[in-house]
Amino acid sequence: MNIAILGGGQLARMLALAGIPLGHKFIFLDPSPTACAASLGERITAEYDNPQALAKVANMADVVSFDFENVPAAVVANLANEVPVYPPPSVLLTAQDRLVEKTFFQKMGAATPVFRPIDSLEQLQLACEEIGLPAVLKTRRMGYDGKGQCLIRNMGQVNQAWQELKGSALILEAFVHFEREISLLAARSQDGNILFYPFIENQHEKGILRRSMMPVEEPAYFKLAREWLCKILRHFEYVGVLTLELFDTGESLLVNEMAPRVHNSGHLTIEGSVCSQFENHIRAISGQALGSTESRGFSCMYNWIGELPDRAECLKIPGLHWHEYEKFPRAGRKIGHATLNFDNRADLENNTARLDILLQERKEGRI
Amino acid sequence: MNIAILGGGQLARMLALAGIPLGHKFIFLDPSPTACAASLGERITAEYDNPQALAKVANMADVVSFDFENVPAAVVANLANEVPVYPPPSVLLTAQDRLVEKTFFQKMGAATPVFRPIDSLEQLQLACEEIGLPAVLKTRRMGYDGKGQCLIRNMGQVNQAWQELKGSALILEAFVHFEREISLLAARSQDGNILFYPFIENQHEKGILRRSMMPVEEPAYFKLAREWLCKILRHFEYVGVLTLELFDTGESLLVNEMAPRVHNSGHLTIEGSVCSQFENHIRAISGQALGSTESRGFSCMYNWIGELPDRAECLKIPGLHWHEYEKFPRAGRKIGHATLNFDNRADLENNTARLDILLQERKEGRI
Repeated sequence: MNIAILGGGQLARMLALAGIPLGHKFIFLDPSPTACAASLGERITAEYDNPQALAKVANMADVVSFDFENVPAAVVANLANEVPVYPPPSVLLTAQDRLVEKTFFQKMGAATPVFRPIDSLEQLQLACEEIGLPAVLKTRRMGYDGKGQCLIRNMGQVNQAWQELKGSALILEAFVHFEREISLLAARSQDGNILFYPFIENQHEKGILRRSMMPVEEPAYFKLAREWLCKILRHFEYVGVLTLELFDTGESLLVNEMAPRVHNSGHLTIEGSVCSQFENHIRAISGQALGSTESRGFSCMYNWIGELPDRAECLKIPGLHWHEYEKFPRAGRKIGHATLNFDNRADLENNTARLDILLQERKEGRI
Repeated sequence: MNIAILGGGQLARMLALAGIPLGHKFIFLDPSPTACAASLGERITAEYDNPQALAKVANMADVVSFDFENVPAAVVANLANEVPVYPPPSVLLTAQDRLVEKTFFQKMGAATPVFRPIDSLEQLQLACEEIGLPAVLKTRRMGYDGKGQCLIRNMGQVNQAWQELKGSALILEAFVHFEREISLLAARSQDGNILFYPFIENQHEKGILRRSMMPVEEPAYFKLAREWLCKILRHFEYVGVLTLELFDTGESLLVNEMAPRVHNSGHLTIEGSVCSQFENHIRAISGQALGSTESRGFSCMYNWIGELPDRAECLKIPGLHWHEYEKFPRAGRKIGHATLNFDNRADLENNTARLDILLQERKEGRI
């Protein structure tokens, strides 16, 4: 099958690495001439709304998917008239706007942080009083990795936050004092079968995911999140992998956002699951049965952000699996990751400790 | 690192799929314009002794390897003057000639079937009497998948066998009444570290590998084979993966041949080992530490020969992992494989039984 991906970043790259053994060929549409997936298939370098490029995609592909949620929803909807597109474009309209998305979550019965739409400074002031501080002012659209956000700690900071973000459609969200961030990934096939991966724990630094771990111990209140995700998948007649990002307050889970795609926190499923998020996304969109989402042992993924650590040193750690993205290093840019995978938790902990020392030594310039 | 592979078949393809996440780029030299690895890197379509092509390889590559043992040894030796080549070209001279190879095994202390060099019909008659029948007359060079071989059951068949194969340098080998065929794979790094994969059991049909299983129960007399392989690796100062093909007579192991490369029987290491034969070959030739060769659960690999079974049906089997090679189907041609992998042997057996039924139904034209 010829599979076109809108977006040619590391997610598209890993989709291709999973899909090539299944017999598929890949086409990548991306505005960047250095999109890192492109060496694994046919490259189309053009903006996402370029009519010639889209015609070429429709002509070449048996099925189309996307590797990020901010590809223009109208473009994808149009493309779906020419060639099957999975996940369904309707999910993009919801996922691209935090206000629409959170309103939708509530309709699905999912708990979210308290939020208010913000169109003026007056509204913002009022909302801060209603919700209470701290609260987070966010652009409704195009935010990722902590961009387009402003934390308001006290009423004195309201005006400054407004000045910073005004001009965009905004949403104010209550600041959640969470214990940890959790993600939940599921795949849904074309015949409606849904499989969940185990819950994943995520650790962020400066708004960017640094580490993910799977599986995690699962309090009873986690169960609800699977029901929410199930409802969401069925609502959209979703096909592919969908990710829910959740806050764990210690008493309940709150949905932060969804990503209608494979997700950074799911990279550890390559080694840590029978069938990875990438392979299951490809299986789903190509009309095949899903593979098992059961865990294989215990996994911890480290993102390589801005620069790679010493590969030769890292590869000396026995259960470490290395993934480079062929991306030019730049501050804050995700250019690779490594997953440590072991049969038991003690081995995992010993070896993440070993890696942590190595990373710390590098940070301090000792190696 | 830029890695050139002489040969662009499925082994080169799976080497690339393992090496790309490690940050490497691949160049494939192959006489066939449809070599199936080529979509994963730079393709050079030329004969292996084409000087321009070899100059290009030497110019582009940081390291060179090969995906089959019949690439011209002299060519590889010359190339090694320009750019590092692993495994060392000297191993090819030994592996390309059954007589040289078996003589070498004996020098290493490894047990082999009884054999004699054959240069004339008279010699063949004498050797048959000495060794006893049945015996197998083989060409010394270029045989694979059962080609270039002739089984002699009684003295009346001696002349016919001679007529069939004369003109090539020949070897007569005692026919071994073995219980099963076993392979043993090891990887050796540039700093001399050696890691063994568990023994693998192989089932052939018409001289072509059909199924491989790992791990197998290991009688005490298997131990010797690890010592032999160790000696062989050290003798060549070998770097990369080397495979020993062995006969298990129920009382001892006899070495049949070696393959100085990753091997069909090791495909199941992709899912069945912490670090696959492909990744370990790439790690070794690129100067990195080896990854763990420990097993993950129980694995069984099926070769797809001549045609693919129904992929959609196969993918319904939970622990089945599908690998297509992008090769045009043709009788007797290896065009893909699948590996079933489970945490316990019972699950593996239940699901191989399920796959066997599916394959049988297809054979009988019922699906």
